[in-house]
Amino acid sequence: MHKEILEDIGEKELINRLGKFMPKNQISDDCALIKTNNENLLVNTDSLVENVHFNNISICPQDLGWKAVVSNISDLLSSGSKKTLGITVNLILPSKTEWTWVEELYKGINKALKKYGGIILGGDCSKGNEKIISITAFGIQGELELRRNACKPGDIILTTGIHGLSKLGFMIQNKINFDNNVSLNERLIIKSIKHFCRPQVYPDFQKNLIKSCTNKKIKRIGCTDSSDGLFQAIQDLTTASNCKAIINYEEIPKDKDWPRGEEWDEYYFFGGEDYELVFSLPKKWANNLSRLDKKIYKIGYFADGEPSVEFKDKNKNKLLKNIPFKHF
Amino acid sequence: MHKEILEDIGEKELINRLGKFMPKNQISDDCALIKTNNENLLVNTDSLVENVHFNNISICPQDLGWKAVVSNISDLLSSGSKKTLGITVNLILPSKTEWTWVEELYKGINKALKKYGGIILGGDCSKGNEKIISITAFGIQGELELRRNACKPGDIILTTGIHGLSKLGFMIQNKINFDNNVSLNERLIIKSIKHFCRPQVYPDFQKNLIKSCTNKKIKRIGCTDSSDGLFQAIQDLTTASNCKAIINYEEIPKDKDWPRGEEWDEYYFFGGEDYELVFSLPKKWANNLSRLDKKIYKIGYFADGEPSVEFKDKNKNKLLKNIPFKHF
Repeated sequence: MHKEILEDIGEKELINRLGKFMPKNQISDDCALIKTNNENLLVNTDSLVENVHFNNISICPQDLGWKAVVSNISDLLSSGSKKTLGITVNLILPSKTEWTWVEELYKGINKALKKYGGIILGGDCSKGNEKIISITAFGIQGELELRRNACKPGDIILTTGIHGLSKLGFMIQNKINFDNNVSLNERLIIKSIKHFCRPQVYPDFQKNLIKSCTNKKIKRIGCTDSSDGLFQAIQDLTTASNCKAIINYEEIPKDKDWPRGEEWDEYYFFGGEDYELVFSLPKKWANNLSRLDKKIYKIGYFADGEPSVEFKDKNKNKLLKNIPFKHF
Repeated sequence: MHKEILEDIGEKELINRLGKFMPKNQISDDCALIKTNNENLLVNTDSLVENVHFNNISICPQDLGWKAVVSNISDLLSSGSKKTLGITVNLILPSKTEWTWVEELYKGINKALKKYGGIILGGDCSKGNEKIISITAFGIQGELELRRNACKPGDIILTTGIHGLSKLGFMIQNKINFDNNVSLNERLIIKSIKHFCRPQVYPDFQKNLIKSCTNKKIKRIGCTDSSDGLFQAIQDLTTASNCKAIINYEEIPKDKDWPRGEEWDEYYFFGGEDYELVFSLPKKWANNLSRLDKKIYKIGYFADGEPSVEFKDKNKNKLLKNIPFKHF
């Protein structure tokens, strides 16, 4: 059966069809209008490039659409967004792309928006040699400004969840060989693939921070997300805040079936695409919040010193010596 | 001499260098913050793809940076932006891209922002097979909302300037053969290349509309820009506003040396990348504005009827029969 590709559809009809994924008033105009109601906006933009950030083996278009939205919302939340307003979608697609691929992508986009809020505000579609999905997301800045440079020596370092699962899911999907001596149980395999294909984020994070607050004077909190891995997130906080992070290896939350060993620690710390929040709070506030939300873990603290990351247990520091270096 | 390419620089240093093109407070965070001061925002996003929208023969990176910004600002102005706040820049670049290319691109971006207002709010850079520049631009919605669907039968159709020059500039730069019987004078050649490489826009448009206003009750004006050509702009207005456009061929402003003939009319109407504003106003207001700004031209009117474009001089309608069709 011949599958309909973009070349068959033509530009005019394509624009027309894409318009149907958007709210009515946003179609057929040069710009999108965002009503701000006297609140400041957070904006984030990210591109996913085929064969750099994704491939058609490891992720289906519907999951890709979901993930493209969620990775942007994660950045908004890590800056203190209290509400996602919407996104613009910029697609670059080869002429041979099947229409069903586009449809599935938008299904995933709209499912994520339905779950986490926001609408498609506008977009653009152009021809290119490889598929690229660029999303710009808009949120409303909440009362607490979450910023990379707002960590303070003495603050407790916390995270919203378990790391490494997305990396494991990626490896399973791409049939990449890992540690042959380990047999993974089915629950962990399914969970990892889900973390990789359909990551979740924390829309109530700002609300819970405010609820557990112990010092109303503090309006800026150190925070980022772990889209580039837990280690990179902590390092980014130390660099922006000019302090040192001490991590307690024993306190790091792991899946109960997560294998032991250096290789698995590496996946844990350097895996990436986890979309957990990594942040810092004064001690009392940290205790309050982790009582309120049992899935938030205290994993260490910030101290005076040059920007760096180290383990409380010095034996573990060798783990950080082999930081995988990403070449452009 | 070895030219430094992105692969030599590495991702970390590249992000560092790109950060230097941005205002200090926007570096090193997950999101950009936009202070809105209780005003509504206009957002526009556009991608330029190598060998689809540009090539390295016809435009240098500095001009490309300029043009990428200006094409976005043109969309903001055509929706009634009274001030450009800033842009986010999303680059996809092959590893072999020379660093000087990136530097030149940003020079052009910053020159355009210096001229038309706004700052770089944030951005992202990823690896890919072909160069892609995605810009999202933010402006403040002015008092008058300019929208494609706000034209009314009886309104006069106006435009801010001459069309076709950018198309001619494109053909000259790409050494595309055109009408051999015509010899173009040097002034027109230089002017056309300038229109193609360094298009200008109209930052005072909203202000001048308000200044010349004859009916304070009207808050919505029909408008779009001619980035896809004059014909397409008028057609988009008729479709969105559900009325018929009658164009007076004789009133269309042409460069004094613009050659005569069907081919040249085609370049004029279907050329694209002109970034002029095409809009409609009630008669009195139109007269007022064209007295205030001598470079604004009345070129026809809207009438009741099915969405369509025709010439007052019926002989000219054959021109519109051969609409070049863009395949995806």
